[in-house]
Parts: sequence; C-alpha cells; structure tokens
Amino acid sequence: MFELLREDQATAARRGRLHLGRATIETPVFMPVGTQATVKAMTAEEVWGLGYRLILANTYHLYLRPGAELVQQAGGIHRFMAWDGAVLTDSGGYQVFSLRDLRRVGEEGVRFRSHLDGTEHLFTPERVIAVEEQLGADIIMAFDECPPYPATHDYARESMQRTHAWARRCKDAHVTDTLLFGIVQGSTYADLRRESAEFIASLDFPGNALGGISVGEPREAMLEAVEVAAPLLPAHKPRYLMGVGMPLDILDAVARGMDLFDCVLPTRMGRNGTAFTTYGRANIKGARYREEFGPIDPECPCAVCQRYSAAYLRHLYKAGEILAARLLTYHNLAFYARLMEGIRAALDAGRFSAFRQEFERCYTQGDDDGDSGTAGAGQPHS
Amino acid sequence: MFELLREDQATAARRGRLHLGRATIETPVFMPVGTQATVKAMTAEEVWGLGYRLILANTYHLYLRPGAELVQQAGGIHRFMAWDGAVLTDSGGYQVFSLRDLRRVGEEGVRFRSHLDGTEHLFTPERVIAVEEQLGADIIMAFDECPPYPATHDYARESMQRTHAWARRCKDAHVTDTLLFGIVQGSTYADLRRESAEFIASLDFPGNALGGISVGEPREAMLEAVEVAAPLLPAHKPRYLMGVGMPLDILDAVARGMDLFDCVLPTRMGRNGTAFTTYGRANIKGARYREEFGPIDPECPCAVCQRYSAAYLRHLYKAGEILAARLLTYHNLAFYARLMEGIRAALDAGRFSAFRQEFERCYTQGDDDGDSGTAGAGQPHS
Repeated sequence: MFELLREDQATAARRGRLHLGRATIETPVFMPVGTQATVKAMTAEEVWGLGYRLILANTYHLYLRPGAELVQQAGGIHRFMAWDGAVLTDSGGYQVFSLRDLRRVGEEGVRFRSHLDGTEHLFTPERVIAVEEQLGADIIMAFDECPPYPATHDYARESMQRTHAWARRCKDAHVTDTLLFGIVQGSTYADLRRESAEFIASLDFPGNALGGISVGEPREAMLEAVEVAAPLLPAHKPRYLMGVGMPLDILDAVARGMDLFDCVLPTRMGRNGTAFTTYGRANIKGARYREEFGPIDPECPCAVCQRYSAAYLRHLYKAGEILAARLLTYHNLAFYARLMEGIRAALDAGRFSAFRQEFERCYTQGDDDGDSGTAGAGQPHS
Repeated sequence: MFELLREDQATAARRGRLHLGRATIETPVFMPVGTQATVKAMTAEEVWGLGYRLILANTYHLYLRPGAELVQQAGGIHRFMAWDGAVLTDSGGYQVFSLRDLRRVGEEGVRFRSHLDGTEHLFTPERVIAVEEQLGADIIMAFDECPPYPATHDYARESMQRTHAWARRCKDAHVTDTLLFGIVQGSTYADLRRESAEFIASLDFPGNALGGISVGEPREAMLEAVEVAAPLLPAHKPRYLMGVGMPLDILDAVARGMDLFDCVLPTRMGRNGTAFTTYGRANIKGARYREEFGPIDPECPCAVCQRYSAAYLRHLYKAGEILAARLLTYHNLAFYARLMEGIRAALDAGRFSAFRQEFERCYTQGDDDGDSGTAGAGQPHS
C-alpha cells in the first residue's frame, strides 16, 4: 500500500508512494481541506487540475449536514461531490472537542450538541467508524480526543489513555476495506508523545498520524512533538501530520519524516485576501498592489497569475466579489501543489536540503516575517 | 456595424449581427451583468466558454471603485478584468437615480453621495461620457434620468425632456470611436414613449435603447412601452432593452423587435439558490431535491448538470458554500446562452413562433408559476 521510494541522507525526509484504489499518491503530499464535501470556492475539476489526488473531508460536519446516510445513498463521498480522486476523512474528534461548552466526555465517548441546531449526539469510537464507513472515504481516521493547548500533564495522560482505548475499539469496529489510520496524542509532553507513538504503532494500523498539533502551541513545541514521535512510527507506513501547516512548517516536518499534511490555511487565507508567494505571504489589501498590473507572484506559473493582475485581485477583494476568493484560493492551492512537487523532486534528486534552504531564503522576504507558527491554524468549524 | 440578417414573418423579431472591433455579436443577444468588472462568481474564461462575447459593466460602480483612472491605467476595462470579449457600460443614470435620499437633480446633472463612503460627486452628461471613455468599453450609454415607477405624467415628461437634452450633450461630448447608444425614456406613458423614441432616433446614434423599464411596473406596461417605442427606432440599428429580463420577457421583447438584453437575475437568483430550467425555475432549497441524485435540469447539457447532482447543489447551498453560487450562476448563464441560441436558430430557420410556443409550454411547468414580471429585476447596487 505504501512504498518507501527513497530516504534523504541529511534529514529524516522520505519520498514515498501511497497506492489507494482510486489514485496513487506521491508523498510528501498536501491534502486540501474539503470540510463540507467541497474545497471551499473550488470545483472538483480545479482541484484535480492542480494535481491533487487526495483531499480531506470532515466527518463531524458531514455527519451533521447533509448526513452520512445521504452521502452513502449518493454512492459515497466521491460520487456525492463528483471528485475523481481519493478522500481521507478525519474522525470528528478535533471538531467535537472544540465544542467546549457543548460536550461531555466519558470513557464511552463524547456527547455533544450540534453547533448548527443544538441537537444532542453521541460519538463513540464504534459510531464514528460506522459514520466514516458510510461516507466511504479511502482513508479514515480513528476517533481520538484532541486535548486543548495548554493541557496539564495529568490531563494530557488521561486523555491519551482514552485515545488509546478508543483506538483499539475503532480497530475492532472497522469492517470495510477502507484504510484506518491511528492517531498519536500526548500534547506537548515528550514522554507522552513517545508512549503514545509506541502504543499506536503496536496496534499495526496501515498508517499513523500525529494529532493534537497545531492547536495553538509554540512552533518549537510542535516540532519537538514531531521529532519525538515520528521515528517511533514504522518507516514502511505513511505518517500523517494532522492540521499542518504553513509552508515552512511543512518543510520542517518533512525533514522530520512526515509524509502527509492537511491545513485550512491556503484556502482560508485566500478567502481572507492573503496570497502565498515565492517571496512570502502577500496581503492583497495592501496599497502597494493598487497599481500593480502584473501578477501577485511574478514567479508563479498558475492560471491566475498568468491571467489576472494583483490590482484586479485587490479590486475584487475590496469589492467583496466571490471571484476574489476563487482566484486567491486557486493561486494558494497552486502554490502548495508546487511546493510539494518541489519537495518531491528535490528528494528524488537527493537535494532536499538545498531546495529547502533556497525556498526559505526567498519565502522569508514577504510582507510578513515568514510564518507565524501554528496558532489558529486549525479552527474547527470552517 | 449592425447587419440585419433576417426578419421574422409572424412577429417583429429580427436576427442580426453586431460587428464590434473585439467581437462579432449575434443578435438577439443576452449580456451577463458584470457590475464591478466581474460577472459575479464567474471567471472571464467561464463566461467566454459559455459563448458570451459581450457583457455589461456599471459605470457608477467602477467610477467609485476602483476608479475610472485606475481602469484606464490598467489598459481599459477589458484588460483590467482579463476579458477577451466586448463590453458595454451603462451610464450610471439608473444607479444614481436610485440613490433617492443621496442625490439632487438639476439641468446641469446630478449631484449625489457615494453609497460606499458618502463622498459627494457630480455626474453631468459630459462627465459621464468622459468616465465611460476612460473605462474604454466598446459600447457606451448616454447619461439619462431613470424615473421611478410610478411617476406622474408631468414628472415623466419633465424627466424625459431632461434625458433628451442630456442625450444631445452626451453626443457632443463623445470624442472616441466607441459606440454611443441613446436611451429612450417616458415611463409607462405611450405618448411620451413615442415622443422619446422619435427624438432619440433623430439624434442618429449607432444604436438605441429603451430605459426606465423593469423598474417595478406591471408586465403589461413593460410590453406596451416596448411595443410603442420599438417600431419607431430605426430598423437598421440595434435596439437594446435595458434591464430585461426573465426568459419569457425576453421572448416577448424579441417578438417586438428588440435585439440586446441584460439582466442581473440569472446571476443573482443563482446566488440565491434558484436555477432556471427547461421546466421553469427550480428552488434548490426545496425538499424534493434532497435525494435527487440527478442534475437540477435533466435536459441541460451544461458542465454543471453533466457533473453535479441537485442533491449536492442543495447541500452546498444549505451549507453556505461559495461553490453553490458558482455552480448555480454557471448553470443559469448556460441556460440563458442556450435560450438565446435557440431564439437565433429559430429565427434563422423561420420558426421563431413555434420555438417560443414550445419553450413556454415547457417552462411554465416549474416550481413557480412562470415568471413574476419585472418587479425587483433591477436592483441597482448589486
């Protein structure tokens, strides 16, 4: 299912290939987020045209609306959204645990109220696996508890143990031939991350993920959690860093041996007027773009940069036009696709570290001082 | 510039061809509305791909934001918005006159406050023509007064006379080789419509329009105004019915000799969840589409209907996703493009009346009882 094609000499970075029934995924890979069975502002054809073959959809959101039964009736998530590639569904744990005032956690599972209409629901590991199987993704995630940051060591351990017990129950409940991935927790505590990675690895899932990352912790804590856990996850299986991240975060995590990534930021920030460019993030609202009749990123070969000027994008954004969200989202996903292609090509050519250095040198020249770490990257309900 | 290719035997309908530098426009034609230099929710490529070669943009909106100078600096409206086809700009009269509490009308022109920031501006015929020439459209409209419905006969006459005086001044002020079209006013009064049509025709513009239509008057009043004025406009020049309309209105106006049309409804109603279909308007929110895994219009060959189910469109709409606005707008513009192609092909084949009858027979089977006339079709600021 997962081929490890090549390992970097200087770092723990890996070049791999993930064989899913519907698509072959070259790793390291970034998955655009399609929360409600749509990558916001994009058509399925556009996402495909940018080279993406694997996207993420949110179990919590689809369970509430339109409902997993309806998606199943439509022939599964792929047919429902007319997406020709593969899909990974998260477990809803992250979303449910963010409903602070609306949920109650027990060993059995989590009782919560819908953020849409206040109705009460119970997510147990068994129920979540059944829902994910109804949605019919290619890869489904175990139901985990995602503790907030900061969490005490005691709470982080208790929560991790619950996640471990639930991981076993997910495995027992899982009956279809979709791939079920386990999730490592442990907050920002190295001892817990280690214990969790070893435990989850022992359950022999076909792939393993690091969860509870990018929930507001400092960038160093994020990288340490990855550094500690990644080597303990089997090398011949894909490793997925959930909710990460910004371009520099992805490079750092690839260097630490991670293979799969997802993040709402390229799409959300696009809708909010930020373009990712070769020279860092660009705020389209800036006066400097008022009379910029060239593209927002002069180095970018994407369809938006080939056709539309920064001045026009700025006008659209300021005028509140949907086309602003469309074009900036498209450009940002093109940027991420190109970043990942660059990483893979560099790994193939044995020059990952040089690529990374060159990328960082350019990227840190932008409007912003590079990336701002993980805070806020993972708002759960959008 | 305008070739009259064929006249219908049974009605006043005409098949024509409008030669603009940038594009050849087959008439009768519908122009999608691109208020702020974008057909809402669509890319220029998509509008082009649907067969459109002429769109409308709003002078008032572009004058305020981003400003006509900026558009000129960008190389004109076409380059600014990356549109390969032709553009018609309205004169802003309709928008300015709708700013009821924010404007003062005199013989000189109209003093008004921006709906965006309250700043004061003066539109005179000379100023508007200069602004339209800066925007650089292929066809520009004379600055007219658009009286509200209902208007007294006295006010309608006074307003019409002002529009006539302004039409002369527009003609004198017009210096570029863009085509300047005149606008007939006269509210719902047949005598005034007649007088106005004769006067505007006498000024020998290369094209003539009927304005002040679709401002809330009953459907019969709209048709009467067209019926009275159209025959008085020279047959060898294009006739443009501004702000109209719904499919059945267009058919009726084509039958009365009109050639060009524009309307915000296919795009606006698309964003609001209404699809135009072979069998009438369909409200995507309806429960009947919940489990409709076929297209919203089974007869429609458009890319949306070929790929996406009504159930998915409904989900997207209910979830507030941008993709709902995109797909419904695309479908509706495809519907209008097909309607106009159908009209032209029927005229070519000498069977316009049969086409019209057949279209109406199917179309009046929809969710709604056909079209709702003109009320509200022309909200000025969106």
